[in-house]
Amino acid sequence: MFEKLIEHFLKFPGIGPRQAKRFGYFLANADKTFVDDLVKLILETQKNTSQCPSCFRLFKNAKIGTAEFNDKCEICSNLNRDASLLMIVEKDIDFENIEKSRVYNGKYFILGGAISLTNTNGKLNNLRFKQLFEKIQAARPAEIILATSATAEGENTARYVEKILEPLRQSQSDSLKITRLGRGLSTGTELEYIDSETMNNALESRK
Amino acid sequence: MFEKLIEHFLKFPGIGPRQAKRFGYFLANADKTFVDDLVKLILETQKNTSQCPSCFRLFKNAKIGTAEFNDKCEICSNLNRDASLLMIVEKDIDFENIEKSRVYNGKYFILGGAISLTNTNGKLNNLRFKQLFEKIQAARPAEIILATSATAEGENTARYVEKILEPLRQSQSDSLKITRLGRGLSTGTELEYIDSETMNNALESRK
Amino acid sequence: MFEKLIEHFLKFPGIGPRQAKRFGYFLANADKTFVDDLVKLILETQKNTSQCPSCFRLFKNAKIGTAEFNDKCEICSNLNRDASLLMIVEKDIDFENIEKSRVYNGKYFILGGAISLTNTNGKLNNLRFKQLFEKIQAARPAEIILATSATAEGENTARYVEKILEPLRQSQSDSLKITRLGRGLSTGTELEYIDSETMNNALESRK
Amino acid sequence: MFEKLIEHFLKFPGIGPRQAKRFGYFLANADKTFVDDLVKLILETQKNTSQCPSCFRLFKNAKIGTAEFNDKCEICSNLNRDASLLMIVEKDIDFENIEKSRVYNGKYFILGGAISLTNTNGKLNNLRFKQLFEKIQAARPAEIILATSATAEGENTARYVEKILEPLRQSQSDSLKITRLGRGLSTGTELEYIDSETMNNALESRK
Repeated sequence: MFEKLIEHFLKFPGIGPRQAKRFGYFLANADKTFVDDLVKLILETQKNTSQCPSCFRLFKNAKIGTAEFNDKCEICSNLNRDASLLMIVEKDIDFENIEKSRVYNGKYFILGGAISLTNTNGKLNNLRFKQLFEKIQAARPAEIILATSATAEGENTARYVEKILEPLRQSQSDSLKITRLGRGLSTGTELEYIDSETMNNALESRK
Repeated sequence: MFEKLIEHFLKFPGIGPRQAKRFGYFLANADKTFVDDLVKLILETQKNTSQCPSCFRLFKNAKIGTAEFNDKCEICSNLNRDASLLMIVEKDIDFENIEKSRVYNGKYFILGGAISLTNTNGKLNNLRFKQLFEKIQAARPAEIILATSATAEGENTARYVEKILEPLRQSQSDSLKITRLGRGLSTGTELEYIDSETMNNALESRK
Repeated sequence: MFEKLIEHFLKFPGIGPRQAKRFGYFLANADKTFVDDLVKLILETQKNTSQCPSCFRLFKNAKIGTAEFNDKCEICSNLNRDASLLMIVEKDIDFENIEKSRVYNGKYFILGGAISLTNTNGKLNNLRFKQLFEKIQAARPAEIILATSATAEGENTARYVEKILEPLRQSQSDSLKITRLGRGLSTGTELEYIDSETMNNALESRK
Repeated sequence: MFEKLIEHFLKFPGIGPRQAKRFGYFLANADKTFVDDLVKLILETQKNTSQCPSCFRLFKNAKIGTAEFNDKCEICSNLNRDASLLMIVEKDIDFENIEKSRVYNGKYFILGGAISLTNTNGKLNNLRFKQLFEKIQAARPAEIILATSATAEGENTARYVEKILEPLRQSQSDSLKITRLGRGLSTGTELEYIDSETMNNALESRK
């Protein structure tokens, strides 16, 4: 039982055997109140978290069937957000970080991850390419912003999305623009360590 | 609710804000089965874990009142373990690591931590000095092995235990020996970086 | 003598006491040929390295007075490099890294470092603001690119250069443009960790 | 020339390409006085450092042929050091660290390194096993202390030395004791991470 609990903690993101074991001892040792609260919060989070059927992000929701239940997340149902812009991000936590910067007022789509460079097939099945395709056909945004990370996986994913959206871009009578976040110096970049691609973009986008 | 869940994860050992948030998303996103199992295991661990009244370590136990319920942990109730030796360790996880090395066949006492070098007072209240005193008076071991870490906190703790056991050592008609684990090169120690104390001990205990 | 050698190594960039001592033993232990070659190369490097009077970078040069001696470095004297562009960098090593990326064909100016956030005064004296001012008055570039690092020190330095060049910019009959390298995602940036400023720039410069 | 200088710095212990280049720019940029002093100190260190023919450590010496020239290092020629104890260490820097701890008053022998676990053959040629054998035959110490590091390489080296000294140990009419530094908790060891071997030794050598 203790071993099974530790096995479950091993599936938490970024947790290795030693820390999983510490979690086990921590909980076995913890106040009953703390543990009861924790369990309650875990169950409530699962129960009261819906996945938005429009952007696929997780959001706090009321019980289905109740008056307070929402069909969509607060961003998808917000009429003040610019529906002509659709930003595609890899993960919920990316979405949250971008919202925190308060520089974007369009809509989002959560892809569910990036295409791994190694076990491509398995990963592809988890990502919401089909749902993205349908979303764009239905919502008809004027611009799609590919906001994947500037890592090998992120760029791989962006290229793949561009490829599968190409037919849509050509068929759509009203033009569909597909853009990527600009490259350049990010906070902390030192010129001593800058790579050619970043330097090239930083030079072109100088202002 | 999501924020409160994250606050609870922040109390887990070694978890900062970013990882606590990841845990939140991880659980909100996880299969219902995984979450239900996790919650069940957490509750069972708390329910079926007893603190041994003799050595104070946590151990798996049956429900109180049932036939399978044990008064003491399997080490305290094991007659083949040498009751004349009592090893004092800081934490459950230290106990577990020492047992894994299979080099010790005596009994244990879990102190509950080390004396912090900063907020001394608060910490002292959490440690089981009183219980240790009572345990020794009752069990009358021939030797007490102070197995605290070779850190400033660990040595501080060992010195403090020695001090509070001094009256006991003098009053006990049959002699009570108090020892500490030997110092010397531990696996990985390089002579280039060795400190004077370790070198001195390594030289004296050469063989 | 050995101690004095180690003190000298302590002044090398990034070298602490232990590594300085290792260098000492390494050299005391090294082949006579290696040490003689090293000494010869150090002396030759000093003797045959000139500081370009135009951009202030260090470059390999022949002995002064000889036919092979060059007044300026190979970039300042290269007529194919675009003299209407002047890129200001902090250090020789930044210059070298930018050249390696082969994306820039203008001229350079090496400032000699960045303005430290702490001991401002001492640092300012080492930096070539006066020489920069004179260089611009003489060379009359159409655009000055501030290629400092995207760190607090680098941005502080860029702002300071902008300020001291402001009178020059206003007085110059032909317009003087002052730009900075574009900000955005640099290679490796993950959306999960992006800061507001970088996100804002990446969004604005999307393409 | 600059490139060749950098190649030489690459041979310094622990120096990679980037730091070697920084050293190059640092020296090209440095005051003439600093560079001249550095070069003088490097040459003097080589010239005035002798390898002691008895223990093989490097020591400061006067020019050969002068009255101040010493045959042996100050430890080998010190009659107050206990000649019945011979401590074998891997490197000069280990020797220096042990001396600093002021807990040992015997003699030393510097082996010249440890046996690498990978390219065994090449390494063996560099180590002074033959000289050690001769030294012991001549000096006839009562005890040899193997003070290699508690790493795989160090223990491998200690075992190898034990093996080659075995015939000597058996033939010597007066007994030759071969010891190793004691194992146990070294400063900083935490019980949570202790390995079986260290625990076993720490338990046995408790006091």
